[in-house]
Amino acid sequence: MNGNGSNIPGYTYGTSAVPTSSVTLDDLQRLKISVGFTEEDAHYLHMAAPVLEDQVERIVNHWRANIIASIPHLARHSRNLDGSPNPDYLARSNRRFQQWILDTCLRPYDQDWLNYQQEIALRHTSHKKNQTDHAVSTPYVPYSDIVAFLAVLNNTIKPYLEAKGHNESDVAHMHKAWCKSMQIQIALWAKPYMEIENGSTEW
Amino acid sequence: MNGNGSNIPGYTYGTSAVPTSSVTLDDLQRLKISVGFTEEDAHYLHMAAPVLEDQVERIVNHWRANIIASIPHLARHSRNLDGSPNPDYLARSNRRFQQWILDTCLRPYDQDWLNYQQEIALRHTSHKKNQTDHAVSTPYVPYSDIVAFLAVLNNTIKPYLEAKGHNESDVAHMHKAWCKSMQIQIALWAKPYMEIENGSTEW
Repeated sequence: MNGNGSNIPGYTYGTSAVPTSSVTLDDLQRLKISVGFTEEDAHYLHMAAPVLEDQVERIVNHWRANIIASIPHLARHSRNLDGSPNPDYLARSNRRFQQWILDTCLRPYDQDWLNYQQEIALRHTSHKKNQTDHAVSTPYVPYSDIVAFLAVLNNTIKPYLEAKGHNESDVAHMHKAWCKSMQIQIALWAKPYMEIENGSTEW
Repeated sequence: MNGNGSNIPGYTYGTSAVPTSSVTLDDLQRLKISVGFTEEDAHYLHMAAPVLEDQVERIVNHWRANIIASIPHLARHSRNLDGSPNPDYLARSNRRFQQWILDTCLRPYDQDWLNYQQEIALRHTSHKKNQTDHAVSTPYVPYSDIVAFLAVLNNTIKPYLEAKGHNESDVAHMHKAWCKSMQIQIALWAKPYMEIENGSTEW
């Protein structure tokens, strides 16, 4: 795993290919305040990065193969429209999924991060899903599926945070910071969804 | 605190005043699966109900007076438009906020619950905010504020779950079940928001 993700297909973090977010840094500051996300949380996410770094492949595999694969209404979003597997799409998006874990922990939550949050959201909406990997799959992932599945990410990340022998208090702080970041991120993702998928049958 | 909330102003749970949700029980079932919400979680929420029941006033006061009141962009939603306090609006909505904690723990997640989830969401959107209490306040609560603030609810509920001497494992299970329910609920609230606030400046 390359820390800055430069070899990951379709990973365009910090490049000119990523449009500027319609969410401002002031909006982000308000979100952080609403969540209670502080410098201490950023500190514990930085602590989590080296803990998770050599586990990201295993973690994403846990989410994808052990959980999502057994839930048809989630699994379909990385499959072909007839429900058959699309290993290339899955492999490419898994690499970005892995990098996203590290970005959550390591990247400063600045304009580049905000722009890429919007890009991540758009890649799940009908505006951009499938495009990056030239896949033929579901037209979008309903926002509710993403919000719901975050509960699974939050619950399953804990043992991986414990895996490097940190004390209980540090693990609890890392986990709390992770959960806060998740809540900031789905708040950010809601905006493109509201603008694009407001007429969707599935929300 | 009356367990079924029958004396709470504007609390219309299970009555004919509450329209049927556009979310179906099948949709809810899929959400539960995505979140990983099982019978075990329902069991632990039932365990949490008597733990929280005599603390709900203190809990809501903690959220409102210790946290929301010090965050202007959140506090404004239960104040008059000029920023002055509206004690009546606050008191009435606090009673429902308290009852919502118990409903989260005790109510079966059935059609009535689904209907009231939609009602709760609508009462935060421009479709229905302020109406129940005849308040003159902000026209709606941005969805992102709600999603973000859930992180605070999740973090601050823990000590209250610990307050009745349950062992660490039971507390952890009650807390996990609570967090899963929160994720289901904000997924449900997203739908009315996407239909109503898609053109809003704040999302």
